[in-house]
Amino acid sequence: MMLPEVTEKLLAAKKAAGLTFADLEAKVGGDEVWIASVVYRQASASKEEATKIVQALGADTALIDSLTECPVKGSLDPVVPTDPLIYRFYEIMQVYGMPIKTVVHEKFGDGIMSAIDFTIDVEREEDPKGDRVKVIMCGKFLPYKKW
Amino acid sequence: MMLPEVTEKLLAAKKAAGLTFADLEAKVGGDEVWIASVVYRQASASKEEATKIVQALGADTALIDSLTECPVKGSLDPVVPTDPLIYRFYEIMQVYGMPIKTVVHEKFGDGIMSAIDFTIDVEREEDPKGDRVKVIMCGKFLPYKKW
Amino acid sequence: MMLPEVTEKLLAAKKAAGLTFADLEAKVGGDEVWIASVVYRQASASKEEATKIVQALGADTALIDSLTECPVKGSLDPVVPTDPLIYRFYEIMQVYGMPIKTVVHEKFGDGIMSAIDFTIDVEREEDPKGDRVKVIMCGKFLPYKKW
Amino acid sequence: MMLPEVTEKLLAAKKAAGLTFADLEAKVGGDEVWIASVVYRQASASKEEATKIVQALGADTALIDSLTECPVKGSLDPVVPTDPLIYRFYEIMQVYGMPIKTVVHEKFGDGIMSAIDFTIDVEREEDPKGDRVKVIMCGKFLPYKKW
Amino acid sequence: MMLPEVTEKLLAAKKAAGLTFADLEAKVGGDEVWIASVVYRQASASKEEATKIVQALGADTALIDSLTECPVKGSLDPVVPTDPLIYRFYEIMQVYGMPIKTVVHEKFGDGIMSAIDFTIDVEREEDPKGDRVKVIMCGKFLPYKKW
Amino acid sequence: MMLPEVTEKLLAAKKAAGLTFADLEAKVGGDEVWIASVVYRQASASKEEATKIVQALGADTALIDSLTECPVKGSLDPVVPTDPLIYRFYEIMQVYGMPIKTVVHEKFGDGIMSAIDFTIDVEREEDPKGDRVKVIMCGKFLPYKKW
Amino acid sequence: MMLPEVTEKLLAAKKAAGLTFADLEAKVGGDEVWIASVVYRQASASKEEATKIVQALGADTALIDSLTECPVKGSLDPVVPTDPLIYRFYEIMQVYGMPIKTVVHEKFGDGIMSAIDFTIDVEREEDPKGDRVKVIMCGKFLPYKKW
Amino acid sequence: MMLPEVTEKLLAAKKAAGLTFADLEAKVGGDEVWIASVVYRQASASKEEATKIVQALGADTALIDSLTECPVKGSLDPVVPTDPLIYRFYEIMQVYGMPIKTVVHEKFGDGIMSAIDFTIDVEREEDPKGDRVKVIMCGKFLPYKKW
Amino acid sequence: MMLPEVTEKLLAAKKAAGLTFADLEAKVGGDEVWIASVVYRQASASKEEATKIVQALGADTALIDSLTECPVKGSLDPVVPTDPLIYRFYEIMQVYGMPIKTVVHEKFGDGIMSAIDFTIDVEREEDPKGDRVKVIMCGKFLPYKKW
Amino acid sequence: MMLPEVTEKLLAAKKAAGLTFADLEAKVGGDEVWIASVVYRQASASKEEATKIVQALGADTALIDSLTECPVKGSLDPVVPTDPLIYRFYEIMQVYGMPIKTVVHEKFGDGIMSAIDFTIDVEREEDPKGDRVKVIMCGKFLPYKKW
Repeated sequence: MMLPEVTEKLLAAKKAAGLTFADLEAKVGGDEVWIASVVYRQASASKEEATKIVQALGADTALIDSLTECPVKGSLDPVVPTDPLIYRFYEIMQVYGMPIKTVVHEKFGDGIMSAIDFTIDVEREEDPKGDRVKVIMCGKFLPYKKW
Repeated sequence: MMLPEVTEKLLAAKKAAGLTFADLEAKVGGDEVWIASVVYRQASASKEEATKIVQALGADTALIDSLTECPVKGSLDPVVPTDPLIYRFYEIMQVYGMPIKTVVHEKFGDGIMSAIDFTIDVEREEDPKGDRVKVIMCGKFLPYKKW
Repeated sequence: MMLPEVTEKLLAAKKAAGLTFADLEAKVGGDEVWIASVVYRQASASKEEATKIVQALGADTALIDSLTECPVKGSLDPVVPTDPLIYRFYEIMQVYGMPIKTVVHEKFGDGIMSAIDFTIDVEREEDPKGDRVKVIMCGKFLPYKKW
Repeated sequence: MMLPEVTEKLLAAKKAAGLTFADLEAKVGGDEVWIASVVYRQASASKEEATKIVQALGADTALIDSLTECPVKGSLDPVVPTDPLIYRFYEIMQVYGMPIKTVVHEKFGDGIMSAIDFTIDVEREEDPKGDRVKVIMCGKFLPYKKW
Repeated sequence: MMLPEVTEKLLAAKKAAGLTFADLEAKVGGDEVWIASVVYRQASASKEEATKIVQALGADTALIDSLTECPVKGSLDPVVPTDPLIYRFYEIMQVYGMPIKTVVHEKFGDGIMSAIDFTIDVEREEDPKGDRVKVIMCGKFLPYKKW
Repeated sequence: MMLPEVTEKLLAAKKAAGLTFADLEAKVGGDEVWIASVVYRQASASKEEATKIVQALGADTALIDSLTECPVKGSLDPVVPTDPLIYRFYEIMQVYGMPIKTVVHEKFGDGIMSAIDFTIDVEREEDPKGDRVKVIMCGKFLPYKKW
Repeated sequence: MMLPEVTEKLLAAKKAAGLTFADLEAKVGGDEVWIASVVYRQASASKEEATKIVQALGADTALIDSLTECPVKGSLDPVVPTDPLIYRFYEIMQVYGMPIKTVVHEKFGDGIMSAIDFTIDVEREEDPKGDRVKVIMCGKFLPYKKW
Repeated sequence: MMLPEVTEKLLAAKKAAGLTFADLEAKVGGDEVWIASVVYRQASASKEEATKIVQALGADTALIDSLTECPVKGSLDPVVPTDPLIYRFYEIMQVYGMPIKTVVHEKFGDGIMSAIDFTIDVEREEDPKGDRVKVIMCGKFLPYKKW
Repeated sequence: MMLPEVTEKLLAAKKAAGLTFADLEAKVGGDEVWIASVVYRQASASKEEATKIVQALGADTALIDSLTECPVKGSLDPVVPTDPLIYRFYEIMQVYGMPIKTVVHEKFGDGIMSAIDFTIDVEREEDPKGDRVKVIMCGKFLPYKKW
Repeated sequence: MMLPEVTEKLLAAKKAAGLTFADLEAKVGGDEVWIASVVYRQASASKEEATKIVQALGADTALIDSLTECPVKGSLDPVVPTDPLIYRFYEIMQVYGMPIKTVVHEKFGDGIMSAIDFTIDVEREEDPKGDRVKVIMCGKFLPYKKW
């Protein structure tokens, strides 16, 4: 896992400022996962958004520009990631991938859930038996074109 | 993608009966994704649940028993799956994996979202610009133990 | 390369009938590449389209139904395909992938060319120095969503 | 994705000059994708072409020479690339590879589309439902030799 | 095998101090394997625990903070590790994996042994025929949820 | 996961007889995991042991002989197994592999824990917060020879 | 290594007839390696050529047709082949690949040796110190196109 | 593709001197492909040969010694190389590997063509339809020993 | 691990006859490892040798012919074999590969030990601390050719 | 192939001193392959042995300590090594692995040859037809434990 230099600088600034991504969401607007994606150079921001993020972090304004570029995406190094938190999502697809595929096809027909016109939210759900992580993915359904 | 024989028989029965998994949810109880997981042999059912599923499908009752066994899980053949619908979830993790990891850690500390004490739902969200697929994952947060 | 049984039966019927996919395009409507995709079970047809294709091939009408199902897609076996014709497209991406990515981003911003809302055509271009294969891909531009 | 040093320098100069590859096409001649391929060291230029490109970018003329060398080609790092824009072309081949192969063989016989005697163009196609990316590949058909 | 910088510094301090992880267990509390996991950045410590570890090693107190962060886990480089000591555990799973799975399922039903709510101990067992390594893994049983 | 024919027959007999491996341990002697290893053809039994196992299962005595042969070991198909229960052991090594290696070396010097002169036990540990799976591995320490 | 059925039948006929590929070259015309390629379904023959080959082998004339089809090429199963004779060619490229590339570029400029407009011959060269295998590859040089 | 430092220095000297490997063949003796192999550290030279090569290039004589060492061979980075010129040789083996194997076995019996007692030459063959690359490999036949 | 049919038949005959490969060595001549290699279709025998082997085993004489053919070699399925006995040889090379290479080069110069003009013997060495397996490999040194 | 820094320094000292590993064997005691293993950091030496090796090489005595540490073993980079000398041992296992396994099992029963309680020697065997490399591996037989 090699982070780009700009990411390392922004994370250092964030640590120095003692801010969480939830704090940034409150300060900057936009969702915390999306802001984290910009910081990890998996998403590109507009000039204005980039300025807000860099300033909220108190980081070097020379970094603003590079947040506006289209990044080469994909940050996980081994093909099957070893980090237990991230691996669980791969396991979920190994176990529930075909069932999901079937249910989506029954509800929508032949097509996919877009991973581009797409949002993802992470919430903490209180539960007396132990709090739960709730991940809500929402992508436009794209039907296969015929021609 | 080689399906176990019991899966093929149940899918054939389901097709003959003209039922969707949503229909099964209404008839059998439990979530449609979970029922599909049982049919694809990624989850095990109790004797009672298995009986309901097999009867609702009008399938051979000799199949009930094998739905109660603990399966060897993991149904996707190539390490990185080629089916576009399933691949999108891998892409989501490549792009948003580290951001999600960071946000979960900021909300919960060092640990993971369980993929075992875990539910997944698929919903159709109406949208004038094109309906959206909503996938809601919800798993217990498990903190790393120290000893 | 293991073809599904329905594909093998349709290809045998096609061979017996002495038809090319271009002939099918003329008889059935729709593009020849798309029809070939249906036959290879990489695309799903409507009941009506499936009926036309099966009848044009003079094949068993019992095959119509399975052409309407949503297939598990991805037909190339080794991760990097060995067939020289197909491999060339991988080589093109190895050589021209980053240049294309940069040019698309300069023309459209951060996003992708859809492979779902997408068409592909193959044409023969006459050329005195040797005829040329022309492959025209056309997919909707999908900008990354911010949220 | 490790870019060669010369590429990094040229991209920095290009950014400083505020030029797109389409601007370079207008200034230097030749197609923008080909110019981008030279800059990414996937294609070699003549002395004259290299001089034009480097001067148009206002970059160090000491870089001209290295643009004329035959590069070791292939710039995508993981065997299956993770960047969503580039991955789509791999997905297209997984889904439409065999159909294309069959159609090419029906139109031309046993052989391939050259990836060497080959051009590629990227165009923006206006569309009220959302603009489309058009990628036109055109390579000489090479029939298999018998001997 | 690339160790993070903080790990290298702590291991150097440990070597200079002439301490084993068993010595650290005695000084700091907590199990020696867990302390080693913190040093190798596979586990995160509280501020207090990190302070004790760094002080016991006589290392730079500036390192305390980075031991409290949630690490990206997974330290073995090739997918199947080449080091003979670590490889043996993979071999054990190749040989005894299915038998263990069956026995666990017979004792507990469908579910897993948690690798998060989990402890591991290494003991030396005296044996006249040659001492033995005893590795005791203990994880909470997590039954698969139905929903 | 393709089981050898003899394994499938013995598992079918075991299911028909309604016996667990713990029942077999009581009837046949030896540990239940070892007996399961023989049934899965990962270990070889003596003629006498094989006879006891086959008879306890009420299976065809013609199967006795093949349990005495030295099997080709290694029953997990994909290099990194997809089954969640078995995968956890791989994850444990990714996370705790280097710490264990260090602790073993501090306790024993340069060498390994044998996976051949080796036993493994699975126990259920009652716990009010949820029962725990205890896996006890015990292998002879083998020091590296110098010559 | 799974041979297509037609290949197996032709090889059986060839063995029954006691013919070498050199004998076939004498009877049928064309080079022995090319004829072997047709038999192994790596090359396609014209109707006339296929007829000659099948008749020379005394094989079932029903096999003629399938020799005229464009095959899916690539017959070596593991990515790096294990057979020592074939592996040597991979080793030659590992050792002499870059030197050859440099020499070809110095002699021809940026481009490749075609593997399509290409012939290959195998000869036995008598040598008192042990006869030598001579493999002569000859392919059209294809310069990279600029556009 | 990471070249050893000595290779980079010699290639720089060669470029400064404006020499091709064919020029070196004329000056130094030995084949140009072999000389290139020495420069790329895939072959070792005698002290005398190394001296000639380094002097002909006008390079630092301190480099002579390292050309005489036995190198760790194998210079191509991804298992299947991406460079189109080098890949063609892999493709040739995928397509013609089994035919060559059969023909060699018919001509020589069970054994291999040595890749050690082996020479390789690259020639330019003039051809009005486009010049051709001729690659002549010649290795001693080594029959399998029986014992 | 899929054995060829002829191997399975010969192994069955060998088992029925109650013979070890050492018994075959005594009856047939030649080394037991070589005879095993012929039976596993990794080596080819002369007509006379094949006849002796098949007759000694009391197997169907129709099998003689196929032992004389040149096999496609390489019988281990996963790239890194999982069987513990065979894996140890891979581990030996991981650990001692570079040391062996250096020592061979110091003793012989640049070249290899032939794996073709090569014999291998397996002996049991009595030892009061536990008997030892002795594997003696002996191959002709082949120096790299210069040309 | 990245060597540890200590290995590079010792190899440089060895080259400067003009010593072979056979010379070191004479000076230091112990086998030359084992000494090479220590230098390549695949084996650990005692303080006394390390001192002798470093002094015999005339190297910096500060290096002594690091030769006494337990190394992370496994020095070959690509999973299947490309160096022809080392690859031959992999090929030997591909071809003779199953025959060896069978013969070992017939001589010893179910178990393995230890790669830890193990020695390896390399000898030069004079032979008028060309000298031969003799590699003698000798490891304790370890029978599988039953429990």
